[in-house]
Amino acid sequence: MTPSRTSEARGYSATKDDLLKRLRRIEGQVRGIEGMVEEERYCIDVLTQISAVQAALDKVALGLLDDHAQHCVIGAAKDDQVEKTQELMAAVGRLMRRG
Amino acid sequence: MTPSRTSEARGYSATKDDLLKRLRRIEGQVRGIEGMVEEERYCIDVLTQISAVQAALDKVALGLLDDHAQHCVIGAAKDDQVEKTQELMAAVGRLMRRG
Amino acid sequence: MTPSRTSEARGYSATKDDLLKRLRRIEGQVRGIEGMVEEERYCIDVLTQISAVQAALDKVALGLLDDHAQHCVIGAAKDDQVEKTQELMAAVGRLMRRG
Amino acid sequence: MTPSRTSEARGYSATKDDLLKRLRRIEGQVRGIEGMVEEERYCIDVLTQISAVQAALDKVALGLLDDHAQHCVIGAAKDDQVEKTQELMAAVGRLMRRG
Repeated sequence: MTPSRTSEARGYSATKDDLLKRLRRIEGQVRGIEGMVEEERYCIDVLTQISAVQAALDKVALGLLDDHAQHCVIGAAKDDQVEKTQELMAAVGRLMRRG
Repeated sequence: MTPSRTSEARGYSATKDDLLKRLRRIEGQVRGIEGMVEEERYCIDVLTQISAVQAALDKVALGLLDDHAQHCVIGAAKDDQVEKTQELMAAVGRLMRRG
Repeated sequence: MTPSRTSEARGYSATKDDLLKRLRRIEGQVRGIEGMVEEERYCIDVLTQISAVQAALDKVALGLLDDHAQHCVIGAAKDDQVEKTQELMAAVGRLMRRG
Repeated sequence: MTPSRTSEARGYSATKDDLLKRLRRIEGQVRGIEGMVEEERYCIDVLTQISAVQAALDKVALGLLDDHAQHCVIGAAKDDQVEKTQELMAAVGRLMRRG
């Protein structure tokens, strides 16, 4: 959205619209799953939808990790890079262990 | 074990309210994440919320897998058990590979 | 390997050789990763190998889950099915949370 | 932060012994799983061991990701940082999807 990516304090504005669009789609998918449970749809079909939401959330998470790396790590002062990288690794650890 | 269990067409009715409550909470969490992205909150905090949603979805998925096993596998005719178990395993595989 | 699968007490004998072959390949892959670390190979290449081992272990785990379902759940007395299914679900939960 | 850190070509030498020790333990665990399969031990117990190996591999992977970030991203020239960060993200993606 803005021409100079690294000059931004926080980041992800370049892909903010894209992230929001994907999150709204995920919200809709979760609502769809609620509807399936309401109608007592076959568990396996519900599970397939849950897998799809998990995959979509993984993509959003990877996008955010990448934004963090692009905006908060690259081009920062070295001490900040150390700290931001530690935060990044902790976040990756939580994602791999899932919460 | 109870006579009514296997006579139910689909299952998970016992925990349907619980599942719906958890899914609505997940939907609210996803909406919360959208708000965080709107406000350009710190990526790492957004990622922590995504991990929490993933963990909550994993719990819902395990609940559904268990319902499937309880209602569709246990007490079914043997041929049905074979088929339902194959479906169960395929669903576990999708959940492990995440979609 | 044996004609009557469900009469076996424990199971997975039909695919035992296959499981062992896959586990020995995984053992070799882990040894290969040790060699890469010894030689200080590029981290990203080591990580790619770790992902491959994880995927191979997931496949072994799915095979074992399926054996458990085939041998210990299907065709068992109903009370046993309930217990074996609970064990199965607990194992799936551990695999999804990774340990 | 230490002067020697960024001057190293590849990295992870500081924790190389630790990584190797952990990988050898994982190799031993995989061999232990082979023994369990040989003896036709109960599938669920084998699965518990597989989950333990997966968790141990996740820790090694996180250690390597962190080394990559510390040695190849932090302190590097900006263009290199961009490239190294992209590699890092691709590796995280593979780990999350497991191979």
